[in-house]
Amino acid sequence: MPVGTQGTVKGISPQELTDIGSQVVLANTYHLMLRPGEELVRAHGGLPGFTAYPGPFLTDSGGFQVMSLGHMRQIDERGVTFRSHLDGSVVELTPERSVAVQEALGADVIMAFDECPPYPATHDYVKRSLERTLRWLGRSLEAQTRADQALFAIVQGGVYSDLREVSLRETVAFGTPGFAIGGMAVGEPKEEMYPAVAQTAEGLPENKPRYLMGVGHPEDLVASIALGVDMFDCVYPTRTGRFGYALTDDGRINLNNAASRSQLLPLDSDCDCYACRHYTRAYLAHLIRAEEMLAPRMLSLHNLRYLHRLVERAREAIVQGDYQAWALAWGERYFKGKLPGWFSEAVVLKVR
Amino acid sequence: MPVGTQGTVKGISPQELTDIGSQVVLANTYHLMLRPGEELVRAHGGLPGFTAYPGPFLTDSGGFQVMSLGHMRQIDERGVTFRSHLDGSVVELTPERSVAVQEALGADVIMAFDECPPYPATHDYVKRSLERTLRWLGRSLEAQTRADQALFAIVQGGVYSDLREVSLRETVAFGTPGFAIGGMAVGEPKEEMYPAVAQTAEGLPENKPRYLMGVGHPEDLVASIALGVDMFDCVYPTRTGRFGYALTDDGRINLNNAASRSQLLPLDSDCDCYACRHYTRAYLAHLIRAEEMLAPRMLSLHNLRYLHRLVERAREAIVQGDYQAWALAWGERYFKGKLPGWFSEAVVLKVR
Repeated sequence: MPVGTQGTVKGISPQELTDIGSQVVLANTYHLMLRPGEELVRAHGGLPGFTAYPGPFLTDSGGFQVMSLGHMRQIDERGVTFRSHLDGSVVELTPERSVAVQEALGADVIMAFDECPPYPATHDYVKRSLERTLRWLGRSLEAQTRADQALFAIVQGGVYSDLREVSLRETVAFGTPGFAIGGMAVGEPKEEMYPAVAQTAEGLPENKPRYLMGVGHPEDLVASIALGVDMFDCVYPTRTGRFGYALTDDGRINLNNAASRSQLLPLDSDCDCYACRHYTRAYLAHLIRAEEMLAPRMLSLHNLRYLHRLVERAREAIVQGDYQAWALAWGERYFKGKLPGWFSEAVVLKVR
Repeated sequence: MPVGTQGTVKGISPQELTDIGSQVVLANTYHLMLRPGEELVRAHGGLPGFTAYPGPFLTDSGGFQVMSLGHMRQIDERGVTFRSHLDGSVVELTPERSVAVQEALGADVIMAFDECPPYPATHDYVKRSLERTLRWLGRSLEAQTRADQALFAIVQGGVYSDLREVSLRETVAFGTPGFAIGGMAVGEPKEEMYPAVAQTAEGLPENKPRYLMGVGHPEDLVASIALGVDMFDCVYPTRTGRFGYALTDDGRINLNNAASRSQLLPLDSDCDCYACRHYTRAYLAHLIRAEEMLAPRMLSLHNLRYLHRLVERAREAIVQGDYQAWALAWGERYFKGKLPGWFSEAVVLKVR
């Protein structure tokens, strides 16, 4: 899912999202409730009317962003109190408020309000946090008034296997239409992250979507799909594009380098995006040096299309019953023959 | 002509230019020779290959930009010596070098190397300058080696009627395939500019394009078309778009204002551009406040389309033999009933 934090995937039009095969756009409750406010979005008939993206939306609960404010926020049983990063005003976000805002925003998938503990966090902290997140899940479901939005629950438990198990069992019991794997990609090493992803994905129902929140890089998608993950979101493709980097099967290309400036070949000869069909690396590197807006726009577009093509290929390999071989071949090229242990383990040992 | 200074119309893709009806894109010799250098553009097969815009290009001669560097440049009979704004290196631009660069860039229309005197400038200065510009025109034509590029000459003479007449007569004698009206919109009041435009346009051949360089705003297009001008270029539509302004028949809308943030109507209900078909002013105003790249992109697109639609309507009125009435009606609405004298005079008295 491309990330449209403030109601726009940075630099990309809805038509382009449709053209590259985006299936869902993620928008952020925290940002939109503060600016422009959820009532303006509601007045447009929700996010599709506001943003002109005609496809499905998913909104997060706002919890993750509030947590990442650090010392500016206070958590208690009722919810979270924080200061707006825009004007410093005090705002409260509770399960009830989060669901109300998400109903106004009108996404197709909305998320339960949860706490995403930092890494590292003590066993005791993570235990108390996941228990509260379970109570907040109950309150989120209670608060829901619209029947046309799928509310996904979020499994927590950090990197503690016993706590993941508790969170899994208790969360799955709520029977929500989809489940997210939360608390990952917050600074823990891949060696701690992947066992937790594997355990959680394994324990979630086969017949409902499994969403790994805030992930990830191409290698994370390939490894996590092996573990059974169905949905991802990350600012990485657009953010790294804005910084002048392009994703390819051979790894990330740095267009800020002098070498790119004379290369009369496309970013990625396998790609069918507008940038790859029309531009040389030399031209795009020129745009970057000249600080032209078309550079971040085209690199973001390419990177999104790269990830969409990556999961299209993964889907095809799964359909062919050939995922493990495809993923290893992809990894061999991407990592230039040096597959990290966590990647091989995810693909070979835990492949479903 | 949308302006693509550095080989890109800021924020706009070639596909979008085609979609909105752009007919020619202007690129700047000065900027492109300094970065990325004309040889890289030549290696792409010229500007269409480099930029992926498949339509016609026009390149300026570099003279105007060099002149605007002010104290950093020196002019003599041979040409202009200046310091690069990028790295301070000393660069020479002569008629011969300008044409050689423009041949490498490969535009369909190239411009003779000229001096565009500042405003104000003395009669004596402008006289000596236009005489040198005539000699430079001869050298530009001498230097031309490609037969597939139309080299346009530029009439100078500032706001001095007698000097305009001299420049006109001597320039037209060269019989180039098109002519530009130079030296305008450099700070002179409209009351001095329009008589000079009228005089020059009147004196140029009927059967060849007349190009008013560096102009302009919507009202300048409507007034100048009345005087017989065929071609325009200006950074105004894209620049004012990046600053949050939208062009309409009712004047310029400031999307930075609080009022826009709650308006659930399009920028311009008469417009068929992507922004007007998909977005409310409230959404676009939100993007501006949130500093999202889609804002300058969409406002630039709308403003270019607005000017294209404006000249499409002007063309239709001319075909109908109804230009004066159309232009006055347009002006009544645009100026809210208070037509400036220079506008009425250009439309009513000098209408062709």
